[in-house]
Amino acid sequence: MTDAPFPLYPHRHLLGIKGLSPLDIETLLDRADAAVAISRQQEKKTAALRGRTQINLFYEASTRTQSSFELAGKRLGADVMNMSVASSSTKKGETLLDTAMTLNAMRPDILVIRHSAAGAAALLAQKVSCSVVNAGDGAHEHPTQALLDALTIRRAKGRIGGLTVAICGDILHSRVARSNIVLLNALGARVRVVAPSTLLPSGIGQMGVEPFTRMDEGLKDADIVMMLRLQRERMAGSLVPSVREYFRLYGLDARKLKAAKEDVLVMHPGPMNRGVEIASEIADGPQSLIQEQVEMGVAVRMAVMEALLDPRRNAEGGAA
Amino acid sequence: MTDAPFPLYPHRHLLGIKGLSPLDIETLLDRADAAVAISRQQEKKTAALRGRTQINLFYEASTRTQSSFELAGKRLGADVMNMSVASSSTKKGETLLDTAMTLNAMRPDILVIRHSAAGAAALLAQKVSCSVVNAGDGAHEHPTQALLDALTIRRAKGRIGGLTVAICGDILHSRVARSNIVLLNALGARVRVVAPSTLLPSGIGQMGVEPFTRMDEGLKDADIVMMLRLQRERMAGSLVPSVREYFRLYGLDARKLKAAKEDVLVMHPGPMNRGVEIASEIADGPQSLIQEQVEMGVAVRMAVMEALLDPRRNAEGGAA
Amino acid sequence: MTDAPFPLYPHRHLLGIKGLSPLDIETLLDRADAAVAISRQQEKKTAALRGRTQINLFYEASTRTQSSFELAGKRLGADVMNMSVASSSTKKGETLLDTAMTLNAMRPDILVIRHSAAGAAALLAQKVSCSVVNAGDGAHEHPTQALLDALTIRRAKGRIGGLTVAICGDILHSRVARSNIVLLNALGARVRVVAPSTLLPSGIGQMGVEPFTRMDEGLKDADIVMMLRLQRERMAGSLVPSVREYFRLYGLDARKLKAAKEDVLVMHPGPMNRGVEIASEIADGPQSLIQEQVEMGVAVRMAVMEALLDPRRNAEGGAA
Repeated sequence: MTDAPFPLYPHRHLLGIKGLSPLDIETLLDRADAAVAISRQQEKKTAALRGRTQINLFYEASTRTQSSFELAGKRLGADVMNMSVASSSTKKGETLLDTAMTLNAMRPDILVIRHSAAGAAALLAQKVSCSVVNAGDGAHEHPTQALLDALTIRRAKGRIGGLTVAICGDILHSRVARSNIVLLNALGARVRVVAPSTLLPSGIGQMGVEPFTRMDEGLKDADIVMMLRLQRERMAGSLVPSVREYFRLYGLDARKLKAAKEDVLVMHPGPMNRGVEIASEIADGPQSLIQEQVEMGVAVRMAVMEALLDPRRNAEGGAA
Repeated sequence: MTDAPFPLYPHRHLLGIKGLSPLDIETLLDRADAAVAISRQQEKKTAALRGRTQINLFYEASTRTQSSFELAGKRLGADVMNMSVASSSTKKGETLLDTAMTLNAMRPDILVIRHSAAGAAALLAQKVSCSVVNAGDGAHEHPTQALLDALTIRRAKGRIGGLTVAICGDILHSRVARSNIVLLNALGARVRVVAPSTLLPSGIGQMGVEPFTRMDEGLKDADIVMMLRLQRERMAGSLVPSVREYFRLYGLDARKLKAAKEDVLVMHPGPMNRGVEIASEIADGPQSLIQEQVEMGVAVRMAVMEALLDPRRNAEGGAA
Repeated sequence: MTDAPFPLYPHRHLLGIKGLSPLDIETLLDRADAAVAISRQQEKKTAALRGRTQINLFYEASTRTQSSFELAGKRLGADVMNMSVASSSTKKGETLLDTAMTLNAMRPDILVIRHSAAGAAALLAQKVSCSVVNAGDGAHEHPTQALLDALTIRRAKGRIGGLTVAICGDILHSRVARSNIVLLNALGARVRVVAPSTLLPSGIGQMGVEPFTRMDEGLKDADIVMMLRLQRERMAGSLVPSVREYFRLYGLDARKLKAAKEDVLVMHPGPMNRGVEIASEIADGPQSLIQEQVEMGVAVRMAVMEALLDPRRNAEGGAA
């Protein structure tokens, strides 16, 4: 994983896809592509971040994202420390910022933050002296998820530009949808969103996507169908139909998928609600990229963290 | 810890003692015997599994077993990641299998699984591409516990074949008992079980053990007395007498131990309920092997994980 | 971080400041001073404790202390294992001592213990064969906090002897206060305590400090003002005024701080209750050493653990 072939990623943080140039995105994807090989070796370990300190500060539990960052850091040789909310000082009333400043004083190189509040990562980035990676902030952004999705698509289809991607489900609450829309637009895909009107944001027209409320129309001739998790815990009081009714109208099954192109591929960020937003026949079927997404997640996070700490960039001189 | 003197362990997984040949068991014990020295060095570290990824997926909390696997992996140079149920996606409704497949996609080398369902480890082993170690599945098996018990006995007595071993307590719910019975029988010990009839499995006669309901009879001339933890949390509704009554009848104290051989040794897998199944005078006395068992636990887990990833075995070609 | 210039720290454990000679303390501070540089390097890693095992056994949650020990150990190259109470066997009824003996049998080099009972660390030190570091035991001692505070002061003021240090707040329940009083007295500072009379221990006169119940008097001409956290969870039933009233009388703000010397410096062990014991204008102001304290915490813990495992000392020959 030599740095030589990759252009310098110019930012000190990764707070969102918004603000990244197409070149920034392509650079991260190229680095991630190279990083895939490391995890496929028997000895899956580099010394790229040896002696560096990575802190995962997770205010929301997440099996896959935190694990993915943890393994990425360890495979780069970093010392990784997990701080989950359960064991943190929040019980004692300390604010996010005081906790972050405390951790910052321990001189980490990278702080990976997941928080329920939109803008949490950007707030920290203004205060701490280390690099900040947004691992999901409220309904705002989840940039490494969008990057891993893009890498998965690019490896499966050979390109992103020109593809038709249908993102289906709870668009309103989804940081995954938001980051993916920005990234896919930046790289020239045609992006559609498919959801009941109650789960579409009001300003969806300005986001550069084509909205649909019917799966048969939204999936027509799609190259990629990206299902979202139905986040029932965030939808109290929404006008969501019953789970059974939701699946009938918006759950992805073989019948609905027939509207898409014959070589359509299906994605899901996980964890899945089988029988709610996706049928098992699809999740486990030959068109599914779901396992591939998880593998690409580790590679993308390795690439991002290595790019943020690129020795060519003066740690002090970078801009957020 | 060179691989040269040890025969190849032929399986890709360790799911239970059942299915292992006496040679398999002896091989693992021999490797573990050699591994003891590593943890007794000042620098207790090898490079045997350097760059390998070990994931501990624990659906039941366990101080000693998870710690033992964690230290074993670290001392072998592996990158170890703990996933406890509290921080996992099960809250979000993901199934065991989806969680395991997600972790599998991150390309671990070893998945150590503890789960309340019998057969959980075997189920995963059919699905994932890495090695699986069963760290306890319901009331089914706990093979590394049986191996560490055997190693402890072999080191203390010089052999296992021909010894009389009395396993006492909650046989019905105990995966420890089950794995020990299979192993001790395979290596030629005479195995007795001692318990109130309500805590003996109905088919105990077919397990190759001699059942007793009285301690004085069951312990008569025993070389080893192996006490089990009274798992009160699993016995709701059982016909168990009061704790005080239980201790009077089945708790191991100096008086009851007199029935055994003069050089009898006492074991307990921990954590102990002092004054319930064992008296402190015995637990802390000169006949106790309880601390030794814990030390052997680390050595056995090092040996098992090294054997599973033995470079002589083609990772793809192994059978479960 | 060569050992050559440092006198041998003569103890096998660090259980409290009480019992340390001024030379012991100065030695630890000198080592910590040298350790600061390690965490400021890009590659913040030494091989001083490579292959050693450090276990953090925390019965009380603590973001900063546990993190600080974890990073200190990792930067020294040790294998670090965290055991928090949530995942421990205490739920299953195992005693502190049985848990510690179990961990001890896994042959750690260092056991870092936090517990709600005064004397817990000393109890373990009598039983285990490894070094024990007290990371806070009830209202008794928190020696690494006192050492990091001393290091912070010494670096900021160039000395400790002769300084006037006012420790303010909940003296009664504070192990931080207790350890600091002993250390600062040993090194020749003049120590004052400032608190409502209900939060002063009864025997405060014998502790070598001057007690005050008014901030204006206690802070007069102080070189250092050390605020304590108001531990509301420990004060149920105490005669504590309301939080608002407490802040008016004892909270540190710019007005009250004017009584101290012009070059006074302010400390707080964290986590802070802003607007309760300290105003944000002070916590975030130019006189605050609070971030510096956190950084010194990592250095002090590195120094302590390295000193305890100093290869010049025969591991078996040390006294507690």
